[in-house]
Order: sequence, then structure tokens, then C-alpha cells
Amino acid sequence: MTGVARADVEKAADRMAPHVLRTPVAQVAPHLALKLEGMQHAGSFKARGAFNTIVAARDGGTIPGGGVIAASGGNHGLAVAYAARALGVPAEIFVPEVCSPVKIEGLRALGARVTKAGAIYSEAYEASRKRAAETGALEIHAYDQVDVVAGQGTLALELLEQAEFDTVLVAVGGGGLVAGTVAGLDGRAAVVAVEPERIPTLHAALAAGGPVPVDVSGVAADALGASRIGAIAYETVAGRVSSVLVTDDAIVEARLAMWRDHRVAAEHAGAAALAALQSGAYVPAEGERVVAVVCGSNTDPTTLAG
Amino acid sequence: MTGVARADVEKAADRMAPHVLRTPVAQVAPHLALKLEGMQHAGSFKARGAFNTIVAARDGGTIPGGGVIAASGGNHGLAVAYAARALGVPAEIFVPEVCSPVKIEGLRALGARVTKAGAIYSEAYEASRKRAAETGALEIHAYDQVDVVAGQGTLALELLEQAEFDTVLVAVGGGGLVAGTVAGLDGRAAVVAVEPERIPTLHAALAAGGPVPVDVSGVAADALGASRIGAIAYETVAGRVSSVLVTDDAIVEARLAMWRDHRVAAEHAGAAALAALQSGAYVPAEGERVVAVVCGSNTDPTTLAG
Repeated sequence: MTGVARADVEKAADRMAPHVLRTPVAQVAPHLALKLEGMQHAGSFKARGAFNTIVAARDGGTIPGGGVIAASGGNHGLAVAYAARALGVPAEIFVPEVCSPVKIEGLRALGARVTKAGAIYSEAYEASRKRAAETGALEIHAYDQVDVVAGQGTLALELLEQAEFDTVLVAVGGGGLVAGTVAGLDGRAAVVAVEPERIPTLHAALAAGGPVPVDVSGVAADALGASRIGAIAYETVAGRVSSVLVTDDAIVEARLAMWRDHRVAAEHAGAAALAALQSGAYVPAEGERVVAVVCGSNTDPTTLAG
Repeated sequence: MTGVARADVEKAADRMAPHVLRTPVAQVAPHLALKLEGMQHAGSFKARGAFNTIVAARDGGTIPGGGVIAASGGNHGLAVAYAARALGVPAEIFVPEVCSPVKIEGLRALGARVTKAGAIYSEAYEASRKRAAETGALEIHAYDQVDVVAGQGTLALELLEQAEFDTVLVAVGGGGLVAGTVAGLDGRAAVVAVEPERIPTLHAALAAGGPVPVDVSGVAADALGASRIGAIAYETVAGRVSSVLVTDDAIVEARLAMWRDHRVAAEHAGAAALAALQSGAYVPAEGERVVAVVCGSNTDPTTLAG
């Protein structure tokens, strides 16, 4: 297993340019900008990896009649459904039985076929693999797939054109975004990987010298709740990022502050990067220009008022 | 009475650069961008006019000991309070007796002295004028003052640096923002003035050949509820804008769509410009590149889900 390289990200950017939004950057303080990726199609950066994977397969003539398949009741599922519909490809999304009717309705509204399977995510995922093996549908993993990681990395190429910065803070779940960012920047700026204390997939892997399973809980588990860092992500980022942890309280506070002070609606995962700054988990040097990636906005607005 | 010129806006921009945010522009469709001015300090473009007026007076050595005074229970009051605090100047804000406790608390949280006076806005305004005459405080009008209009116009100078566009759509209440925009663009792009049908201050003035009183009602009255267009605004924009009207239903729908599709939280006034496009009140030509200004975000997020 090897990591993702800048060339992969550049290829992804060329391929996807017509399909994803160039999300804005808001300079909210002299040395702090927010990359508003929650304004991306389907509400998170996941659209980048989904589009890249499907377009790459289409361009290569390898999209099967069964279309694409993914397992996710969250941002990845929405992104795959959105991208598939935009590209005219059928999508089947596997979700666990417990998936909320609202989320299932959201996936169906994007034209996806939704299949409930298993009590927990890993069972839904296994069922999706089984189906893909039967039908030949193109599997799109939530993070551990080269085209997915390369697609997420296009955010970093965009950012290099939009802002001057020394450091970018990125939330980590399975690691697709942070790995894409490291590959895309390729040394042009520092990357700080931010994780909830209660889902330290990368932190634990760095300590152990390789991916290890972690317990998953807390406010950001709906979007960052991978049980281990992706192998591709680990290979890509090990030795090339700083890793910090934030408490759930810091995430909750940063999310409310982002709404109160900047009118940015973020889901909890989307507030984790800013939480690292606000809580002091990461303290920039004097004059260090920092970008916090607001990676998702799929949140209930009635909870923004605190 | 004469209008505001581009030179006034350029002077304002030089003066205010350290104080206001350069708000982001989001390209949400091939020929449609949103200027996210709801991310401005205090949640609306009004901070621009407030800062410009206070800094101009300070630079001229004419800020009296009594500080600044304004009448507004809405965005203008918040902006004056915010700017005064940032510049270390005392602020007194007059609000009508009916002003909600939440709004009064918001003004106090920004350090302003809040004075309730009169049953309706015009009475609060007259009381503020009386106080200013007594104390010599610097009055900051919500729209009909050269430095206020010139300050609002800095949004247009910013936009010229941020995007390529043919037309900008701007909501109109008292006319400060549209007049500043016309002055700032000075022919570099077309300006479409958008008003709720139920508060047609500019539309009625253009029909009558000069400012006339209009009835004020509807969903956007809290921010666009001037009873006539400002004299400075009228002089600045007459003959230089298109004027269109939108229904309250169109505003409500555009506001919800902006949240649903782009995760932008706007107050009703902030959705009026987009409503003109979505409802067909303004139909761009083939290939016309349009910017809709989202001018304010002081809204209750619990109402965004529709």
C-alpha cells in the first residue's frame, strides 16, 4: 500500500473542475481564514472524492451497468448520491437499519436507491461489498481509496490559489481529507490534523506506528466516526502532519461561536478544526497565517442558537 | 442635495480597510455568485457605513465627547454599536418602546447605551435627534448621510476585485447600499435594485420623479422598512439602476433555498436579491454573469429549516 501523491491530486482537479464548487475562503481575523467547504455540493468535501472516483471510472470506460455503490448514512452517502445523479449514473447506498428516516429521505431525494442492511455501519458496509461483488457495481469507499483521497485533495489545490497561509487545520475521521490535503500541499504549507479525543484514529495510529482500531463516540461521531484511520491515509500523512486532539466541549463551543460570530453553519465535525485554535490545542506562532477547514454543514439549523 | 461619487467610496475604502471584513464571494452556479455580506461584522453591510462615518469624524477630529448616536432596533443599531466599541467611542442607540428584549440585549452586549423612546421608529429617531442636539453627539443616519452611503459602497469596490460580473442585484430599503453600489461601480457593471412589493421606496420614487412615502409591511420590514428612499440615495441612483419588485413569498422561498442548497443563513432582506432571480422578477440575458448580494444574516436559525 502506498500513499497518494500530488500528481494524483492534480489529475483529480483537472478531471473534476466542471463538477465541484470552488468554495469560498473567509478571512475572519488578520491571521485566520475559514475555508467554507460546507458550501460544497451535498454539504461537505465528500463530493470531491465522489466526483473524482466516478469521473475517473467513466473516463476510463469502467463504470458498470450496476452503477456505483457506497455504504454511508452520512456525508459520504449524500455525496455519492449527488455526484451519481449529476453524472447520470445509478447509485445504491447501503445504510444500517438504525439510519434515521430523514437521512434516508435525503438520499432518496437525490435519486439514490437506499438499502438498509445490518445493525451497525460495518454490517451495512459488508452487505454493500457483497452486492458489488454480485452486480459488478463500482464501489466508492468513504476514505480508503486512491481516487477518493485524491479528490478530497483538490480542496488544497484550490486553497493555494485562494489564500496565502502557513498552516491548514483539518479534521480527521477516516483520513481522506487530511491525506488529500497533505498530498495536494506537498510541503507548501504545514498541516495540522485535528481529531476529537473520543475518536483518535490518526493520533492512535501515529502512536502505534500504524492503523489501530479505536473506540468511537462523541458529538462528531456522525461524520468523523471511523474506527481506524485508512491505510492510504496513514501512508500519506505519517511523518508529515502534526496531530492534536480536541474535547467535545471545545467542538460544541467552536460550532456555536462560528455561527454567532461569522454566521457560518457547521456540523460538529466542521467545527473541529477551529476548535483546536479556540481551545489552545494548537497555538500558532506569532504571525502564522492559519486556515481552518469547515469541512461540512449537514446540520440541523435549529441547534445553532445554542 | 447631490449624490455620492466614486471618489467618496474610494476614500471610504482607504479609511476603513483595517476595520471591516472582506466578505467572501461564493460562485454557486456558472453565472451566479453570492456576495456573503452577512458574514460582515455585526451581521450586515451596515458595519461599513458605521465605520466609515466614525473613522472619518475621528480623523477629522470632530468626534464629540458625547460619542455617536443612532436610532435603530435593527442592523444599523448593531453596526453602530459594534463600530463604536471597536473604535473606543461611546454609542447611544435609540429604539422604539416595542423593540424586543433580545435586540436590546444584543445592543447592550456590544457596549451601547440603549434608550427606549416612542411607540414607533420615527419617534425614536426624533428623540435621538433631540438628544444629539443637546449633547453634540455625532448622529449616524441609517442611510441618508454621505459617509454612510460611501461606506456601504466599499462592498462594490471589493466585489470588483473578487469577481468578474456584468450585473449586481441589491436589496433596497432606505437605499444606502444600492446608492453606494452605484457610486462604487460607476458604470463598471449594471445594478438591479430589488424591493419587496410591500416596501417599494425606490420603485415609487422613480415613478413619482422623487422620494415619496410608502406603506411598510411584509417579511423584510425589519431590515428594509424605510418609509421613503433617502434623498442622497435617490440622487445617486435615479437613471442608473433597473428597479424590480419581489413578493414576500418569493423572498421566503429564496431564503429557504439559500439555506437548503448553499448553507447560507440569510435574513429575509438578505434573500431579496436572490429572490428576484429565482422568481423571474429579473431575468438575466444568456451568459450574463450575476452577483446577488446577501446583505444581512441577523436571523433566527431555528427558522431556517422552513
